[in-house]
Formats: sequence, structure tokens, C-alpha cells
Amino acid sequence: MLGSTHGTLTTDSRRARVIACGEQPAPAVHGRPAATDDLDVSGRALYAGVPELDRFFRPESVAVIGASDAEGWPNTGITRQLLTWAERVGARLHPVHPTRQSVFGISCVPSVADLPEQIDLAVLLVSDPLPVIEQLAEAKVKFAVAFASGFAETGAEGAAAQARLAAAVERSGLRLLGPNTNLNAFERFRDDLDGPAIALITQSGHQGRPVFTMQELGVRLSHWAPTGNEADLETADFISYFAEQPEVGAIACYVEGLKDGRSFMLAADRAARRGVPVVAVKVGRTETGARTAASHTGKLTGADAVVDAAMRQYGVIRVDGLDELQDTAALLARARTPRADGVVVYSISGGTGAHFSDLAAEAGLRLPRLSDAKQTELHQWIPEYLDVANPVDNGGHPVGDWRGRKIIDAILDDPAVGVLICPITGPFPPMSDQLAQDLVDAAEQTDKLVCVVWGSPVGTEAAYRETLLGSSRVATFRTFANCITAVRAHLDHARFTASYRSPFDEAPRTPSPSYRKAQALMRPGQQLSEHAAKQLLRAYGIRVPREQLVTSAAAAVRAAGLVGYPVVMKASGAQLAHKTELGLVKIGLTSASQVRDAYRELTDIARYEGVSLDGVLVCQMVEPGVEMVVGVTQDQLFGPTVTVGLGGVLVEVLRDTAVRVPPFGEDQARAMPAELRGRALLEGVRGRPPSDLDALVEVVLRVQRMALELDGELAELDINPLMVLPQGQGAVALDALAVCR
Amino acid sequence: MLGSTHGTLTTDSRRARVIACGEQPAPAVHGRPAATDDLDVSGRALYAGVPELDRFFRPESVAVIGASDAEGWPNTGITRQLLTWAERVGARLHPVHPTRQSVFGISCVPSVADLPEQIDLAVLLVSDPLPVIEQLAEAKVKFAVAFASGFAETGAEGAAAQARLAAAVERSGLRLLGPNTNLNAFERFRDDLDGPAIALITQSGHQGRPVFTMQELGVRLSHWAPTGNEADLETADFISYFAEQPEVGAIACYVEGLKDGRSFMLAADRAARRGVPVVAVKVGRTETGARTAASHTGKLTGADAVVDAAMRQYGVIRVDGLDELQDTAALLARARTPRADGVVVYSISGGTGAHFSDLAAEAGLRLPRLSDAKQTELHQWIPEYLDVANPVDNGGHPVGDWRGRKIIDAILDDPAVGVLICPITGPFPPMSDQLAQDLVDAAEQTDKLVCVVWGSPVGTEAAYRETLLGSSRVATFRTFANCITAVRAHLDHARFTASYRSPFDEAPRTPSPSYRKAQALMRPGQQLSEHAAKQLLRAYGIRVPREQLVTSAAAAVRAAGLVGYPVVMKASGAQLAHKTELGLVKIGLTSASQVRDAYRELTDIARYEGVSLDGVLVCQMVEPGVEMVVGVTQDQLFGPTVTVGLGGVLVEVLRDTAVRVPPFGEDQARAMPAELRGRALLEGVRGRPPSDLDALVEVVLRVQRMALELDGELAELDINPLMVLPQGQGAVALDALAVCR
Repeated sequence: MLGSTHGTLTTDSRRARVIACGEQPAPAVHGRPAATDDLDVSGRALYAGVPELDRFFRPESVAVIGASDAEGWPNTGITRQLLTWAERVGARLHPVHPTRQSVFGISCVPSVADLPEQIDLAVLLVSDPLPVIEQLAEAKVKFAVAFASGFAETGAEGAAAQARLAAAVERSGLRLLGPNTNLNAFERFRDDLDGPAIALITQSGHQGRPVFTMQELGVRLSHWAPTGNEADLETADFISYFAEQPEVGAIACYVEGLKDGRSFMLAADRAARRGVPVVAVKVGRTETGARTAASHTGKLTGADAVVDAAMRQYGVIRVDGLDELQDTAALLARARTPRADGVVVYSISGGTGAHFSDLAAEAGLRLPRLSDAKQTELHQWIPEYLDVANPVDNGGHPVGDWRGRKIIDAILDDPAVGVLICPITGPFPPMSDQLAQDLVDAAEQTDKLVCVVWGSPVGTEAAYRETLLGSSRVATFRTFANCITAVRAHLDHARFTASYRSPFDEAPRTPSPSYRKAQALMRPGQQLSEHAAKQLLRAYGIRVPREQLVTSAAAAVRAAGLVGYPVVMKASGAQLAHKTELGLVKIGLTSASQVRDAYRELTDIARYEGVSLDGVLVCQMVEPGVEMVVGVTQDQLFGPTVTVGLGGVLVEVLRDTAVRVPPFGEDQARAMPAELRGRALLEGVRGRPPSDLDALVEVVLRVQRMALELDGELAELDINPLMVLPQGQGAVALDALAVCR
Repeated sequence: MLGSTHGTLTTDSRRARVIACGEQPAPAVHGRPAATDDLDVSGRALYAGVPELDRFFRPESVAVIGASDAEGWPNTGITRQLLTWAERVGARLHPVHPTRQSVFGISCVPSVADLPEQIDLAVLLVSDPLPVIEQLAEAKVKFAVAFASGFAETGAEGAAAQARLAAAVERSGLRLLGPNTNLNAFERFRDDLDGPAIALITQSGHQGRPVFTMQELGVRLSHWAPTGNEADLETADFISYFAEQPEVGAIACYVEGLKDGRSFMLAADRAARRGVPVVAVKVGRTETGARTAASHTGKLTGADAVVDAAMRQYGVIRVDGLDELQDTAALLARARTPRADGVVVYSISGGTGAHFSDLAAEAGLRLPRLSDAKQTELHQWIPEYLDVANPVDNGGHPVGDWRGRKIIDAILDDPAVGVLICPITGPFPPMSDQLAQDLVDAAEQTDKLVCVVWGSPVGTEAAYRETLLGSSRVATFRTFANCITAVRAHLDHARFTASYRSPFDEAPRTPSPSYRKAQALMRPGQQLSEHAAKQLLRAYGIRVPREQLVTSAAAAVRAAGLVGYPVVMKASGAQLAHKTELGLVKIGLTSASQVRDAYRELTDIARYEGVSLDGVLVCQMVEPGVEMVVGVTQDQLFGPTVTVGLGGVLVEVLRDTAVRVPPFGEDQARAMPAELRGRALLEGVRGRPPSDLDALVEVVLRVQRMALELDGELAELDINPLMVLPQGQGAVALDALAVCR
């Protein structure tokens, strides 16, 4: 269910994103989304609208259905909290209760119909929200929040109740948050903090608490959407909305399961077009996590590798820990677009510099060697015997006096440097206090990123609490690892945004001429024979060997003559898999007599194994290359996915594969083989020539097209092996397995 | 340089290790180390003595050479700090200075010779410690500490100066800490903390600060050895010493480079025999780190995979971050031997439970499903619709009242449970404060491990600072990841210790009968021909194909008849590698005429390529199996290492290898193939039979023996491929490359 099917939509206003702590221009908004009702060739939306949620987060009038001020009732606490919040944000609050005259001194109406004004937001404190929805619709209430639990998180019966609730909401025209949600959206947000903020989306209140609490460390938060079971409003809706808000610098998400893969991708695409980073924890790395998440909010987690791929395709930064979520989101919300990707590590200890640099280099950060001139400059203040190439080791003493600031400024002044990281492992006040102050001062004067790791496990030191956390220009971390993760995410995201082109703009909308040919080959519910599967590939312009299907030894010999010796012969049948293991493939046949013998042997084995054949394939023998696998599988959340991997026995043993969710462009197709551990095989090893990567990429793109066009008809496709020949010679599908829906 | 070559040694006193927070028996001490002067067949020590360092850490008399109380001199601050420390520990301090009468009111002597009593420890505040060493030796001073820098960390000249210093120390009979070290050993240690302590060893003062600071969070520290450049005393000496100290529960190390691989292994073996965990950060994951570390303390980092292997062989827990070092060492120092390895996750939020369990399961922790009876018990206090199978989700409310403690006790009471982990993501005082208190109280009543993650990024909350950190029985963490890393290390270490057998006890001391045969084949400085390399293997009982070296086509045909058709033919020569790429291998030859043709073709190619041959090998063709690689290489720190990997092109592309440092036992040899990503190939895939793993393990052990016995003579060995046949059929070395030293 997409956002576009609900409520009102903002136009794509392309509001300039404000980078509040700099004077830099807003990042370019890449591409214009397709029109609201455009669909791709698979019938999926190409566009997600942005729900207009201003009046949800900042309502003028609020009704509390089930309000209470009776001692000991759970609703009393909630009502009290809502009252405080309404007062703070300037909303008028109306209690609704069938019997009470007033609640906390505010006059109460018996039912929704009696509400004295048009209501923006209704908070439902009733155990069954379903009957209330219709009343709210009649009263033209814009938004509702349902706290009740006992829905999809409890099993099949609850899921049915949730489906009824969702249907009622869809009919009503209002938008619902919940059920099984809480008060997080209406907490107290600090309004004394400047700069770009984190907007938070969580499927569990407790799991959002650490990010929310970052406000106490000076990090601004603008919104918190606790999405609960997502009967209507889902994570994707809030991503789309937050990406449009000028005060939002980054979106932090805690996700247990996605309601719909496509709507998530469309929302992430929106954020990517606007350059707004999305950082997410997504449960479901393991079976344990997937099972537990399902029992918590009743959602499916999807195949983890597919979730991972979908996130990377749209620049979503996936992290594992809530601490990483905090630290990465805080950095990405507040850091400006980097000027350069060179990272310099600066420390008062050679050991700290060595250790940090080791971990940073391992994580893929680029630590350029400073120029000789820059090193000479630094040696004005740093003893000659210390290494200042990067990491810069000042040996400790210069930080205690005027030289400390000079060194920092000199490093930041280097055009090769985009990021300065200073790990301070422990408080040593004569040095660390002055160093912290110098870094804070220097950060005010530069538009480059200055990061500090305050490594003391205590964390109550003034240099940390006051000096470092008091600065909105220095990004402060507590561990090397989190600093490295965040800086890498920041640099990667900048690179991603700079070159992002939305695949939705180029996704196919109408079937290609191949589609009609392909359709004629489909056999609903059946596995196609190898021969038919190859015809399917041929329909999409994927090269297959010359081959003929024959049903007699004599025809086999004739076919071999036409195909050209040497030939390969294979038994062919609709339900046939694992032909090699069964001995149903004969290779390198060079004469008519070998072909005749092979025909007899193949048909004998098939008879013996009880396999029914539609004939024997006589195929051209293709010169050797690198055996790859290209396939299509269906994911329960994302629909068809395209996979590339190493072929042969290896693919089973190593599971060395790369996956993408359509639609994706050539850049992504090209990145797939580059992700494989065994990618060097394609580059040519042991004197072998490099493989035809362009041809492999072309096959991947054609398979994607097939997956989209045949979405309703193709359950599974497996080209194994795809023989990728040396550069310039193409790629040939030697075998294929296709299962129809 | 081994500890055993220096100073006095304690006997292996097998003092029982005190587990201070429990009444459990001390862990068994496994095996008795070899005698002091025992050497293995490679001439390496089998035993490292324990330097007697009591008087270093708790001296009765201290001399400060270069003491000062003059305003503005760096030595003045150091002298002041030493005075404070001496007073605290009750040591008599004697300033030494050529011209001063007194320092800080203590009378000063002009030289070492004038010291009024026998000195335990001399602190050298002079820029060149070398001349002082002899005077100290004459005065029978036991220990010296040298702060001066400008030695191996500055390059070749400094390294030479360090070598001179080391030689002087070795002659002197005293033990030296440094140069390039600092005052860390003489800092103020809290003496009000109970229970087992962390002993800390660092090659950088700043890098040890976070662990030292853990004292402020209630974690006891007993010692800090800042080893600096290790001209004499090295990391290994302190590991050996600390492993003997009753108050030490775990040893935490920050290592940039090891002085010697063997001495490190012998020390780690000592700790392993006594069950004392060693947790280490070791720089050198990348080239960047290795280079920077070398410029800091002038040490080599060694090949990282080899360091990793050596650490794992002796149960040393390697971590990457200082925060992990702190948290893992603190847990391992204080936790008792686990009763069971089942981990239960308990939380007030289903989301938190799902997320934590997902990460814990991914890290390999075992999260057993609680029994139906236990779940029924828990549902007395937890609403029926919440999942309590593990993770246990209490939904929040029961923690606020008497039920909270009941639930915790019921979980801890389950015999399947060894560890209870409660992640609390944020402070929510009505729940989190009571929960923290209940956990602390419950932990006092159980000998099982109770862990809490306090996820608030603020960390100033009373529930954290007072309740949780106030408990010595609850292990408190700040991130999910560090808790999982530490708990896993704890359970892994317990498993390791329970089954540890020292490989030094069983290491070969005298050459085997194979050695003489092998020696005759060695050709110093040369690469052996394939035929000679195979004879070397045969000498050590490793199977090779039947083969003959021939120098004419006619002889080739005769040889083929003797070896048996089909045969393989290969060009053979002393400097020949990459035969397959050059076309110098012919397989599957089935007739005399094919053999004759092959002989001609091979000699033609060799002539054309300018390769000189000693003949052509006619070899038995071995039935197919799984191609593996087994090899020996030399590591600059650890000497010979043995590697096992997947064979063929794959080994180059995937670098899928496992490595071990001899000596190692059969258990380690068996673990090697199990570590490979492609291990399933050996188990049999796609209908292939499982491989003869026993034969592979046997080859690895024979290769180890060869590596040790031929240590001075063999530079490199590479069996590629070793054809591992189906179970029960053995393994055959089809090709081998050997390079002599």
C-alpha cells in the first residue's frame, strides 16, 4: 500500500534544503520523480507521494478518545502527558468520554460527533479503535493514533483484526499511526538547539530512546515517528515526509520489518534525490532476529541480503547498533558536504595515531600522505623525529601552548584534507583540555569536518561534557569504531549523492517487443525444458549456443552436422534438473559415431532413472571462459530480484553472489560482479585473458528487463552457467532453468 | 630473546588462582612446562621462565638518576610524581644528581656508586641511559626504567643505539624497562576495590589510559606495564609474570609489534595453562598500521594473519578497539567459569529483545529456547500474548513491582541458562531504575553471569552510575556490540581452557628418521625440481603419484608402461613454476604414440621458452578429488608457518586459507580445513563423496614436522595441488615446489 493512495499529497516542491551550519548551496535535487499515477511495466508505482503530515506533528486541535483523570487508570497518565504536550505546542485539547463531564478540568464531550471544532489529530486510548474510525471520518478528522495492542504482533487472529482496521482507515480518508504505538511523537523536544536535526522513525519506543536522548548531548531532534504495526502510515511515509522538511539533516530509522519493499525504495529514492541521508538499523540478520521481530510488530523481515541490497541501491546507510545509529545520524545530520575525502589523523600519541589509522585504513578511509611542504610546515612546531606524514604525531608537548592551534590550522588548510580526526584516548588535563578547546575553536573557522574521539570510559570530564559537547561544529565520538563508521558513511553518502540518478526515471513502462515472444513460451505452474528456457533467453537477446532438439539418433547426427563439431549432447525434459550429476550430459563429441552412442546412452539413463524426456539437445560446444550464474528469484517483500554469482560447484559452496532489486541502472549492474569475492577470476588470473564484463553487464540488464516484464509469469530463472568469454567475445548461456508462476 | 635468558626465574609454583568473587575451585593448570633448557627440534625454546618482578612493581628502595626540583625542568615533574608514589607504596627514594645537594628536601648523592643502600629500582631520567647501566650493574641494582626516546622508533641509527643498550643490559644482569617508556607503572592504583583485577601491558601510555581509567567505574587494576621499545623486558615477560599473580583475573594488552613471536607464544601458553585470559589489541591489520607502528616503537608487526593464528592457538582474545579491550578484559577478569553456554536475553521491550538477539545469534551466541515449563512459569507474571521463549519480553509493566525480581530469578534458575543479558536502551526511571536494582540484587544471589547494557548515550543517570557500576557482580556495558563481544569471548575462553593441551609438551625434540633422507635432497639457495620436491615429501611419508623422470621419448614410453596408463607428463626443471600456464603439462595420455608426441611437444615448448629441463616426468594419473594446497612459509616474527587452502586457481583468487604456527597438535590441524569458506567442497557437494579429511590432517602434521626439522634449510614449500581423495582413500601430492634456504 503506497502513500500515494492516501490523503493529500504535496507536490514535489523541491524546497531547498538548508544546511544550517554553513553557507553552502543546497545539494542538487537529482531528477524529477515520475507522475503520481505512473506505473512501471510490472505494474508497480514509480512514484510515492509525500503525505502531508504537518498537522499530525503540529496539530492545532486534538481529541483524546478515552481521556481519563481517574487515579490508577493507565489512560490517566497518557492524558496528563498529552495535556502537557498540547499546552507546550499550543494545541487545543478536547477530552472525549461517554460519561465524564470533565477531565483535568477541561470539559469533556460524550462522543466524537459532539466535538466543538474540526479536529486535526485524534488520539485513541480505546482497546478497539475500529468502531471509532468511522465516526472520526464523518467528523473529517485528519489523523488518528491508535495505542491498542493485540493486532498482527499476536498472530493470525490479530492480523485479521488489523486488516479490518486498515480497510476501515483506507475507506475513511484519514491517516492512522499504529496500532500498537505510543506517545513518542508527542514527547518534549528541546527547542534551544540550532542546526540541522535528526528525524527519528522507530518500530519500538524503547529502541528509539538512545537517539532521542542525544538531545541531552546537544544533538537536535525534530521529530519522532513511532510507527508500531503500520496498519496505515508506514516507515516509508515518514521518510518521504522528513526528506522534505528543511530542518531535517538526516533520518534515523529502527526497522524490524518493512510493510512493503517498493514503498520503502520509493521513499529512499526521494531522500536520495534530495541528498538527505537515511541511516537505519534493520533487524533480521539471522533467523532468530527475523522470528522475534515478527512476534513483536507482526512484520516480515525479508531476505536479509535483499534488504541490504535495496538499502545500498538508494544510499541508505545500514548499521547494526543503536550507538552506531546515534553517532552516524548525528554526524550526517550536521556535517557539510565534504570538500575532499582525505582523512588526517592527528594525535598526541604515536600509538593512538598508529592504532586509529590502522582501523581507519582497514575500513576503507583514504589517509593521504601529507606533502613534503606541509610536513616541513608542521615540523616548525613538532620535533623533527616525530612522524607527521599522516597520522600526525605531535608527541604531546606542543598541545599545551600556542603551537597546538597552529598545527590544527595548518592541517585543515591543506586542500588534500577533508576530515581531521583527533582521537584522545584518555583525559590528561594539561594536554587534553587545551587540545579539545583548540579543536573546537579551529572547527568554528573551517568548513571542513573536525572529529574527536573522547576515549575515556568515564565521560564526566569537563573537556568532554562542556568543551566538546558544547560545540555544534565538532563531531564527538566515544569509540574509534563509531567515528570510523560515521566518517565513512559521510564520505560514501556524499559520493553516492553526487552521482545519484534515480532508476525510477528510466524504469521501463511498456513491454519491449521481446515480451510477446517470451509470453508465448510460458507454461503456467511449470518448469520449462532447457530448450524452452533458452528460447526465452534468446527472445530477450541473450546469446545461447546453436542447438537442436532431436528425438532420434539419426536426427542427432544430422543436427551435429548443422551445429558443427565438436558438440555437447544433453537430455532435455520439462522437469529435469541436475543433469550433470545424473550423467545426462556428454561433452566434446567429435564424430557421428560418438553422437549416435551418446544418444543411446542418454536415453538409456533417462529410462533407467524414470525421467521423461522431450528429446535430446545437440548443442554447439562453446570455448572456455569464466562460468557465472545469473538468476531471478522472488522476494516476499521486494518482488523479483536479480542475482549474479560465480558459477559451477562454487556458487553452492561459497554463496559468492551479488543481488539487486529492480529497477536498477547500468552502474548498479556493473557494480555487481565487482562485489564478488572471486571477482579476480573475471579480471584474468594465471595468464587467462580478462573476461567480457560488458557482455555480462548486458546479460544482467536483459535479465532485469525480463524479470520486470514477466513479473506475473516468471517465478524463477537460473542461467547456470553463463559462460563469459574473453573481452570482446560476449557471453553465452550454456544452460538455463525457468519456472513459471 | 627469551625471558629465560635473563635474571632469576620463579619455579612453576602452580599457585592456585583465586577466583575472588566465588567459592569455586581454581581452574586446573594443564600440563607441566618443559624444563628450562629444553629446545625443540628447530632449536627454539620450549619454556619461558617467569621473571621475578615483585620488586619492580613493589620496590623497597628506588634511585632516581637525574632527579630535579628546579622550576621548569621536565625531570622535576617526574621526580615529584615518583616521590608521591614512593611515599604511597612505602619505598625509600634516593635522588642521584652530580651537583645537587638535595632534591625536594631529600639529600642527593652525586652518583650511583654513592647510594646508601642496595637499590631495587633505578629510574633513569637521563637522555643517554647506556653509560649508567654499567654503574647500576656494579651496584647490583635489580631493575631500571629508561624514559629516554630517540632509539629504534627513530630509524636505523636509533636502532643501533638500542642494540648497544640491550647488549649492555644483557651483560649487566639487571632487567630494564624501556627505553621510550613512561611513568605508568607508578601511577595511583585504587586499593579500595575487591575481586580479581586487570593487569595491563601497553606499548603506549595514552593507549592504556582508557583501561586504567576503568578504575573510576569500579573495575580493579593491579598493574600497568608500559613496555616502550622493549630493549629488554617485553610484553611476553609481563604476560608470564601476571599470569602467576593471584590477584590478576585477566591480562589486557595493547601491542604494536612483538619483539619475538616465540616468546609471545610461550608466555601465552603459560597463561593458557593457568586459565588466565589474555585480551589484546594488536596494531597491524593494514600496511598503514604496520608502517606507523614501526615508526612509533620501532617494531615489526608480522603478517597479520599469522599473528591472528598464533593468538587463537593460545586462546588470546584479539579485539580491535580500546573500548572492546576495556569491556572484554573487565568481564573476563571478574566472571566466574560459566555453568552453561546458554544465553537468555531479557528486556522490557520486544524490539530490544529482537534486535539484541539478532546481533547475538549472528555473533554465534547460543540462545536456547526456554522449556515449555519455564515459559509457563514466566507467564505467571508476564502477559500471555508476550513471547517469553528467549528473548523474554516482559512488556514493561512487571518490572515496576514485585514480579520483576521473580522473573529474573526464574530465568537464572533454569539449568540451561549460563548467562542472562538485559539490554536497557534508555533510562525510563519508573521501569529502568527498579530493573537495574533487581538485576544487581539477583546477581548477588547467583553464580551465573548477569550482564546489563545501559544504552543511554548520556551515562550520568543514577541507575547506571550508582546502581549498576556500584555492583561488582553485574557486568555493565554501554553498547550491544561490546556486550556480545565480551560474552562470546568469555564463553569461548572457558571452552578453550577446558580442553587446552599445550603443544609445547608434545613438540618434537629430536629429528625423525625422515630428516636424514630429506637433508640429502636439500640444495642450499636453490629451488628443487618437482621430482626432488616430491622425493622430499615421500621422505616424510606423504604420498605422491608413481612417476619416473625420463630424458628421451623412448624412455617415456617405457616409463608409462611401468607407471600404468593413463599417464600425465610434465616438463621438470629446477627453476620451473607455472607449468600449466606455459603448456608444460599433458594429461590423460592413453597410448605410446600420445606419450611420444607429448614428449616431443614438451621439450619443444621448453626450448622455445628458453627453459632448461632436467627431463620429463611421466606420472600416474590420479583419480579426481578435491584440490587443496598445503604449504610452508617463513614469517619474520614467528618463523615457519603451515598453511592449508583450497587449491587450483581458487587459492589465488579467494585467498581462502588457514594458517598455524608450529608447534600445534592434531586438534589445530583438524580445525584448519574447517575454517575455510569453501570447506563444504570437502564435505561433498552435488553428489560427490566426502573427502578423506583424516588424510589431509595427516599431511598437515607431516608438513609441520618437516617445517620444524628442516627449519634452517627449507625456505618455502608449496604442495599444489594436494588431491584429497574420497574418504578412506588418502591424499596425493600431485605437484610440489620447494625452495631451500
